[in-house]
Amino acid sequence: MTRPTNEPWLLTPGPLTTSKTTKDAMLRDWGSRDMAFLNTNRRIRSILLDLVNAADSHECVPVQGSGTFAVEAALGTLIKNTDKTLVLVNGAYGKRIARILEILGLNFTVQETPENQPNDVDALAGQLHSDPAISHVVAVHCETTSGLLNPIAEIADAVAKAGRKLIIDGMSAFGALPIDARDTQFEALIASSNKCLEGIPGLGFALIEKTALANAKGTSRSLCLDLFDQWQTMESNAQWRFTPPTHVIAALDSALSQLIAEGGPAGRLDRYKNNCRRLVNGMRALGFATLLPDTLQAPIIITFKMPTAKNFIFSNFYDHLKDQGYVIYPGKLTIIDSFRMGCIGHLTESQMSGALSAVEVALQRLGVAYPLKTPSPTNQTQRNVL
Amino acid sequence: MTRPTNEPWLLTPGPLTTSKTTKDAMLRDWGSRDMAFLNTNRRIRSILLDLVNAADSHECVPVQGSGTFAVEAALGTLIKNTDKTLVLVNGAYGKRIARILEILGLNFTVQETPENQPNDVDALAGQLHSDPAISHVVAVHCETTSGLLNPIAEIADAVAKAGRKLIIDGMSAFGALPIDARDTQFEALIASSNKCLEGIPGLGFALIEKTALANAKGTSRSLCLDLFDQWQTMESNAQWRFTPPTHVIAALDSALSQLIAEGGPAGRLDRYKNNCRRLVNGMRALGFATLLPDTLQAPIIITFKMPTAKNFIFSNFYDHLKDQGYVIYPGKLTIIDSFRMGCIGHLTESQMSGALSAVEVALQRLGVAYPLKTPSPTNQTQRNVL
Repeated sequence: MTRPTNEPWLLTPGPLTTSKTTKDAMLRDWGSRDMAFLNTNRRIRSILLDLVNAADSHECVPVQGSGTFAVEAALGTLIKNTDKTLVLVNGAYGKRIARILEILGLNFTVQETPENQPNDVDALAGQLHSDPAISHVVAVHCETTSGLLNPIAEIADAVAKAGRKLIIDGMSAFGALPIDARDTQFEALIASSNKCLEGIPGLGFALIEKTALANAKGTSRSLCLDLFDQWQTMESNAQWRFTPPTHVIAALDSALSQLIAEGGPAGRLDRYKNNCRRLVNGMRALGFATLLPDTLQAPIIITFKMPTAKNFIFSNFYDHLKDQGYVIYPGKLTIIDSFRMGCIGHLTESQMSGALSAVEVALQRLGVAYPLKTPSPTNQTQRNVL
Repeated sequence: MTRPTNEPWLLTPGPLTTSKTTKDAMLRDWGSRDMAFLNTNRRIRSILLDLVNAADSHECVPVQGSGTFAVEAALGTLIKNTDKTLVLVNGAYGKRIARILEILGLNFTVQETPENQPNDVDALAGQLHSDPAISHVVAVHCETTSGLLNPIAEIADAVAKAGRKLIIDGMSAFGALPIDARDTQFEALIASSNKCLEGIPGLGFALIEKTALANAKGTSRSLCLDLFDQWQTMESNAQWRFTPPTHVIAALDSALSQLIAEGGPAGRLDRYKNNCRRLVNGMRALGFATLLPDTLQAPIIITFKMPTAKNFIFSNFYDHLKDQGYVIYPGKLTIIDSFRMGCIGHLTESQMSGALSAVEVALQRLGVAYPLKTPSPTNQTQRNVL
């Protein structure tokens, strides 16, 4: 693989390592109103729908910015002042959704579970039953805070059964973890160019149920983040309302071709599962403990508990890994001290093995004896912390 | 110059032609929390302030998205519900600012001049005198709709003399047209990575006066577009709140180095002036008429009146130019039928000459005799249209 000297492998949840082919797609300038670019735009919108079999039921509306821009845009476009939203929270991204609703001045309530436990579907059903004012539920498919996989199909069933609307933050799941619009009812599914799709960052999108989108005129509290207006313009002339990130879009177009060549989301998930298994097994062999039991772990990003060994200073550990060409991620949990290692991006088991060797070297350099002696992921100490 | 086969030159206001060096800067993935990237981020924010001598008085706050995202973000962050804003309008971008204020539910009024006439500074001074409720004035430095240069220094003087605050949309001017924060008072100056800075699209920024920014906590109606919150986070750890467009930022870093090597904004302006002169002279020799007299023309983008010759069909003209490797831009005027040709981007007089030859060939292919017989830019017919 041809790579710039000293370019590290990014074991992060995004920005992540992308392929040379994807980056090479940015070596050309596109006129944003030119037919060739408009065709690219149409193709991307169509493929994103096809990835979850949503072409008949939904529209794809992309928007400039990070994934959170797409989340705020979708919430602000679809949720009216008369609506009430229930947010399922078990990490920072669920909390961020609640914060957006608060800033937009919308009526909402939160159902929270601990960061190492999935959304509670029975409690959700109960709350929908007891509070008829709730019109929308927002859930996070894979909570990147912990790496936890929420039971999105069960959530969708409970919401549909109660006759409410579901909005899914699929940011770090879309393109790898299975979801099918024909089986899983959602009003909107939101993601970005830069996670499992392995594009570069700068673009988000929402797949929005057609009737809901058609009824969303004038709801948005923002010009830039109005997905109804964005959609109307794209339908009329395939153009973006405001200067599109042409190079990011060209990179996503290339990345989607590569995804299809890999066998689509199922093929990509296989690679990520192998990456995850290799990384978790290797780290456990070195004595690291995962936050989550394997049954809750999405093969996206893994949270490891911070070792208690005296010489294990995270910033030094990080630097020793960086020196060896691997960038990892700090923890984001409130419940325990932790760090994270991603297994998505243009990475294979070969890079996972390389990262494990680098971890071993880092421990040696830090003077930390291994295998480490850390609590196991399910022991009492951790429960007490919660 | 090494370029992909069939890549056209973009004679557009953005996305525009960027250098190979700028695009090559995107061939690497960066961890968004890694020190090397954080240093890039700091460097860019510092250089953007230095370009207009604003380091002592202002803060640079970048935001993901297009230039309009930065405009909406700055307006929403700085203008409070108790404020009243006067928008100077002589084109689509002024109108867009008014539309943003309307959607944000803010109190505003508009002072409009025709699309081929600059903002009226005397009328501005009069309105500020007669309406003491006006707290803010928003002006567009170069109105890309027409290519017109508004008298920003005089506007700033009138606003400062009246004790009000000025917000400048400097989108297509910043990095080339002169502006100096030590002489020209502004509360905010907004621009993007992708115009005269010759970066790639996907990033906007606002240079915001320090006291105004410090007083902006909680004003924004959006999470993503809250520049106070964005600034606070960047000041605390140099990180972006949400996934930054790392490749776009790396490209801007490279583009800024190239701007400095070209002699800064003054050096770049020289090149653009030469481009503009070559293009306007050549087009006039072929019989095309500019919308604007030379005294009002910014060397950014030139509006040409649509020829009246029977065989001159714009879409065919566009295609013949595209075939020859030059992309131009449709008109955006409401007053007359027109098209536009940009002279910014990584282009020199050599590309202007090439474009002129291509125009001549296009006229031949269309069967349009030239020099064309079109009205001169200052004649009575055009005035009557207004």
